Amino acid sequence: MDGARVALATRDEPVPLPGEVVVSVLRAGICSTDLEIARGYMGFQGVLGHELLGTVEGRRVCAEINFSCGSCALCRSGQKNHCPARTVMGILGHDGALAEKIAVPRTALHAVPDAVSDDAAAFAEPLAAALHVRDDLECRRGDRIAVLGDGKLGLLAALALARTPAETTLVGRHAEHFPIVESQGVRAVLEKDAVRKASFDAVVEATGSPAGLDLALALARPRGTVVLKSTYAGAPPVALAPVVIHEIRVLGSRCGSIERALSALAERLVDPVPLLSATFPLEKADLAFARAREPGVLKVVVTSR
Amino acid sequence: MDGARVALATRDEPVPLPGEVVVSVLRAGICSTDLEIARGYMGFQGVLGHELLGTVEGRRVCAEINFSCGSCALCRSGQKNHCPARTVMGILGHDGALAEKIAVPRTALHAVPDAVSDDAAAFAEPLAAALHVRDDLECRRGDRIAVLGDGKLGLLAALALARTPAETTLVGRHAEHFPIVESQGVRAVLEKDAVRKASFDAVVEATGSPAGLDLALALARPRGTVVLKSTYAGAPPVALAPVVIHEIRVLGSRCGSIERALSALAERLVDPVPLLSATFPLEKADLAFARAREPGVLKVVVTSR
Repeated sequence: MDGARVALATRDEPVPLPGEVVVSVLRAGICSTDLEIARGYMGFQGVLGHELLGTVEGRRVCAEINFSCGSCALCRSGQKNHCPARTVMGILGHDGALAEKIAVPRTALHAVPDAVSDDAAAFAEPLAAALHVRDDLECRRGDRIAVLGDGKLGLLAALALARTPAETTLVGRHAEHFPIVESQGVRAVLEKDAVRKASFDAVVEATGSPAGLDLALALARPRGTVVLKSTYAGAPPVALAPVVIHEIRVLGSRCGSIERALSALAERLVDPVPLLSATFPLEKADLAFARAREPGVLKVVVTSR
Repeated sequence: MDGARVALATRDEPVPLPGEVVVSVLRAGICSTDLEIARGYMGFQGVLGHELLGTVEGRRVCAEINFSCGSCALCRSGQKNHCPARTVMGILGHDGALAEKIAVPRTALHAVPDAVSDDAAAFAEPLAAALHVRDDLECRRGDRIAVLGDGKLGLLAALALARTPAETTLVGRHAEHFPIVESQGVRAVLEKDAVRKASFDAVVEATGSPAGLDLALALARPRGTVVLKSTYAGAPPVALAPVVIHEIRVLGSRCGSIERALSALAERLVDPVPLLSATFPLEKADLAFARAREPGVLKVVVTSR
């Protein structure tokens, strides 16, 4: 890590802009995107980390990661996550949460309900992204939904869908992860056993690999939906003819509502804590990143105090 | 042409299956898909041609191209164009219209209204596919829609959108084609002059080239729509990250309603006849295909008598 880094005490003391407050970091999760950014993706220069649990004035808070202008056409139409002038915590033009302190716009903060543990609250941001999948799907009784990928994103997406009237199947490669979702109402099958038959009303692609999109297009029924959660680097080869031939709708899906995620955690609708693989103190963040890169490891969280 | 061919009198006399009638072909259009199939795409063996105008019992008819089973779950749910047991005229398991006669299921036939000329009726099938774009778009007043590609498909899609309340812009490379759509209410701009700015509510990709999808994703606004009409051979490299980052919905779009196309022609809502580049008799079909392959040539039609 050079440009993209964990906060260095000597140079990364946060200086709040107007409207920002300084949050004392309790925990910051490491996400696959962080691993990519640390390798140079996005060309980000600054402090990494966009999964924040902290305290302000003695209260626990989580934060939106998109800091929008509030006045452009997109912000005014309720699409503030797409504000073209936005900065993004730890990703684009704004220092992130792998630090002792971080400056965050006050409007981006959400109080963490008392019923939510620190361990659970640290999942608010990725859980929000997972719950956002439901915004573009009907999830009616009798609908069959497949989630491809049993990494952090796939597991959380499966958990997010578990409480809908639809029937959710996780398709993965790591049977050791299956109990996490099976205990919360999701059927799980190994990818090699998944029938490659166009029978799912919706397929959520969360493998992180373009091969996952090929499989998603094969599993979706004609005029079915593929929700694309994975961002692939570069321009991988993808056979798109099935999109047209079977008239599939492919929906890109990114960030969700932190407030909704915190509510779901407070109401115990989703329990993400079984995904927690390891915790490291901030001064051992290099070990935390190394662990997060290991195969089969799920969420690694860095604690600041 | 070997396996995929124009009908040969000595071997291609149609033998109607139960429920089929023999149609005397008046005209058969050549489509870009035919040029691909003639090169081996789809591995089709049989008579080419899926744009049919003919006569049955003295009446002019056009025909659906998807011949479905009528009894499977998809057929019963109204998605007969996606019937997994379907044959497709001149494309999949059923001889096509580049012949003097063709056997067609009676249920696939639509009478051509008297108000529609032979020249116009020969466009019923590609116009149906173009009008189908409207099925998945709202096309509200104030919406901005771009159509990429000024070949046959792009021009027809632009004409299909011209009569909606939305504002349609054709983006192409052949200024000589622009008057065809400009005279019917569509603004046209050269691709090099198209601002690469995410400002269109919807973009219809009809260039036939994966580069068109890159441009479509660049022109669509956040949470906008890209209608994918082009089928790309193989697995071309495509940068799909914008789909996720800007949460774009990509909608595959294939065949439309022949009946609706004939109504639109009868009501003079669309005039496709300016796209007619050349007509050849059936015995000169090889010249027709050669002409259809020439740059800048639009619709080439083969007449059987």
